[in-house]
Amino acid sequence: MKAGFIQIGPVFGKVAENLQQTESLINCTKADLLVLPELFNTGYLFTAHQEVAELAEEIPGGRTTEFLCGMARRGGSFIVAGLAEREKGRFYNSAVLVSPRGYLGTYRKIHLFNEEKLWFQPGDRAPELYDLGICRIGIMICFDWFFPEFMRILSLKGADVICHCANLVLPFCQDAMKTRCLENHVYAITANRTGQDVRDGRTLSFTGKSQVTGPHADVLYQAGSIGDEVAVVDIDVSRARNKNLNPFNHLYRDRRVEFYRELCEGGK
Amino acid sequence: MKAGFIQIGPVFGKVAENLQQTESLINCTKADLLVLPELFNTGYLFTAHQEVAELAEEIPGGRTTEFLCGMARRGGSFIVAGLAEREKGRFYNSAVLVSPRGYLGTYRKIHLFNEEKLWFQPGDRAPELYDLGICRIGIMICFDWFFPEFMRILSLKGADVICHCANLVLPFCQDAMKTRCLENHVYAITANRTGQDVRDGRTLSFTGKSQVTGPHADVLYQAGSIGDEVAVVDIDVSRARNKNLNPFNHLYRDRRVEFYRELCEGGK
Repeated sequence: MKAGFIQIGPVFGKVAENLQQTESLINCTKADLLVLPELFNTGYLFTAHQEVAELAEEIPGGRTTEFLCGMARRGGSFIVAGLAEREKGRFYNSAVLVSPRGYLGTYRKIHLFNEEKLWFQPGDRAPELYDLGICRIGIMICFDWFFPEFMRILSLKGADVICHCANLVLPFCQDAMKTRCLENHVYAITANRTGQDVRDGRTLSFTGKSQVTGPHADVLYQAGSIGDEVAVVDIDVSRARNKNLNPFNHLYRDRRVEFYRELCEGGK
Repeated sequence: MKAGFIQIGPVFGKVAENLQQTESLINCTKADLLVLPELFNTGYLFTAHQEVAELAEEIPGGRTTEFLCGMARRGGSFIVAGLAEREKGRFYNSAVLVSPRGYLGTYRKIHLFNEEKLWFQPGDRAPELYDLGICRIGIMICFDWFFPEFMRILSLKGADVICHCANLVLPFCQDAMKTRCLENHVYAITANRTGQDVRDGRTLSFTGKSQVTGPHADVLYQAGSIGDEVAVVDIDVSRARNKNLNPFNHLYRDRRVEFYRELCEGGK
């Protein structure tokens, strides 16, 4: 199966321009599964509630989800992409999954980063597994990677590929994804954005280097740190379904859950 | 506080020689906390139950624990070191903690690697926290690192420093420890061995590169891949006790335990 990412540098608040740029990149590629960055249609650095309210959309039904459904239909692809979601006056940092047949599901980010807590509600639903037929995926948004519990749960549920919509500003994630994929024997597609958001005199720079990581800590592809980029690689799902490390060790059967109680009880 | 590791290449089965070599290295150093490799006194590559039975020792009371207590008393150090343990006809891949005042505790490896399962019982007790006064430590043995649950639990219990006795043969751990320490904001001291065990025509090579890793994915020191080496660095415990990432994010309070249920239920 062919899977990859679109790396772009959206312009804050210019949804039409950002969708157009995304369309031109998707039109250049052919893949079974494509991942786009977090908040790919709006940019990241909100400065007022009013902006969030104006730029958030309903999922499904909103302009961006409709756009993505059209792209998926035309390209025959599954697409995972991040956008601000509005539901009953509440706002979430969400990612949508669409197929050639239309809308499939939404993930609402459960680990909000920094000032996102000013603008968004934390996700109110457990991360879900989606069986696409060609593979089973889980969806993760940016800072979720920091919590080893997140990818562990998705892979215990059966995910082969973690679709990771990102707007990374710290330098740690790309290297850490090697460990995350190794410890779970899964693939991850980290679609990061590039460029800067400059708002009210503040500048936030995003690190690019979108990455497809394999189940044995192997980096299948890493993009540059600046500039738009599309990458599609071959993914062998059977590598992710083999959880044996050697004849004696199995990643999951070797877990000693009788000693893991504290993980579900919260910390100090 | 000063903490570090002794990296050595033990000769299989030659306990007296290995203790002597360890003593000469400990005598050259001054530290509050020292970590030695897994099975530092015997070597790793057992080939028969009879060998395990002959080389395993009682903890406390056995020759190696007595030796370590002497070293700790003379140097005024806490020492964590790996050795094969015998108890009531059962054998464990264990690590012992001793202080200048004597024996303090034992950890029995809960995630056995590869053929270790032929020789040892899996650890039968939860990983414990030890408050040494100068810092709080948890003990980990080699392959335990592969399971993110392990260091997470120790740090949730309050560990500042993970004392990691290792006999690493795969290339992943040293890099992964940056992520493990970052995600928990703890220090780790990975004391690895060097050299080879050659037994019954089989050769197993160990990777050295013992490492002290800091709470922000910083490598404070990494040893060479061959040769004996002692390293002691300054550890600032307050860095490990600060679990804030920024004014909005706290490593533990941001965990969404209501969605982590699967972690304590076992996998597929």
